[in-house]
Amino acid sequence: MKLTRRKLEIVATAAKLFRKKGYNAVSMRDLAQALEIKAASLYNHINSKQEILGIIILDVAENFTQHMNSVSPENISSIKKLESVIENHIQITIEKTDALACLNNDWMHLEKLDLENYLMMRNTYEAKMRNIIEQGIQQKELQERNIDLVLFSLLSTLRTLHLWYSKNKEVSPQLLFEEMKQNLLHGIIR
Amino acid sequence: MKLTRRKLEIVATAAKLFRKKGYNAVSMRDLAQALEIKAASLYNHINSKQEILGIIILDVAENFTQHMNSVSPENISSIKKLESVIENHIQITIEKTDALACLNNDWMHLEKLDLENYLMMRNTYEAKMRNIIEQGIQQKELQERNIDLVLFSLLSTLRTLHLWYSKNKEVSPQLLFEEMKQNLLHGIIR
Repeated sequence: MKLTRRKLEIVATAAKLFRKKGYNAVSMRDLAQALEIKAASLYNHINSKQEILGIIILDVAENFTQHMNSVSPENISSIKKLESVIENHIQITIEKTDALACLNNDWMHLEKLDLENYLMMRNTYEAKMRNIIEQGIQQKELQERNIDLVLFSLLSTLRTLHLWYSKNKEVSPQLLFEEMKQNLLHGIIR
Repeated sequence: MKLTRRKLEIVATAAKLFRKKGYNAVSMRDLAQALEIKAASLYNHINSKQEILGIIILDVAENFTQHMNSVSPENISSIKKLESVIENHIQITIEKTDALACLNNDWMHLEKLDLENYLMMRNTYEAKMRNIIEQGIQQKELQERNIDLVLFSLLSTLRTLHLWYSKNKEVSPQLLFEEMKQNLLHGIIR
């Protein structure tokens, strides 16, 4: 998705506002005010609040999709694949904190086509990650467990990491990656 | 908190509705309708929607608080304490699924005193769980890690388990406990 510099600025400001107040509580007027432009001139760049939400969320969803599509067919161990998935979640958490929070909080407010597109990407992502876990168990790299519950345990933490990260922005990406990889894959017991 | 049978019924129905539609989208009229009574007679039992939300959320929060207060000073290993914490989260997830979902989704809509009470309980809970992890690291039962990130990794999964459980209600509490204990404490690698 190619955006003009102006549109990028609008989208970034909107993501901050949506995150802070929730999508429903933000009006186009609030957004224009935050950008210090007139509401009328905002409509020169953007048709609706829903269009902005779609741009924010689908951009993040495409990031996840592209990474999963590139890592899942690779000829590496399941553990290496899961490490790469964890690393990608952390990278997006750090680089697109506001947008990721919007995705988590407000995906249900997408309009029909965007919503279908988003849900398809999310379902495909989960199915591919499920396959990685399943293969890891088959190849005896991973413990024999309830696959859905392993998938849920990993994703529930990775998807909400932005909440922790917003309060701990001083942490280095490298430390965050090492610690999360250990916590999620190796456990916490000595 | 002692409630009459009628009030218990009102609260349980409200928790279901709040969970399904979100607290803000449910009116006292909707609630009366779901209970098949008149709105006026609902007010014989309950003063406001906020009173109901307070009852729902503080009851669950008190369950967590009581368990943490009983387990944290016990003379057992940190690992045993964490296992007990996980078991309690699972028990509340199973027994109070709707109320727990309300707590997670709508705690920010509590009125002032209830909100302060809730936040105090939540902060104390997290501080005590943090202490258990810290002691476990000091006593070399747990890996040396970033304590806050371990706390977050555990709670992010435990607090959202109700989402997974609502779609997988056929799973036995015992299996859920065994798998979650393994996933969260021992990791998934073989």
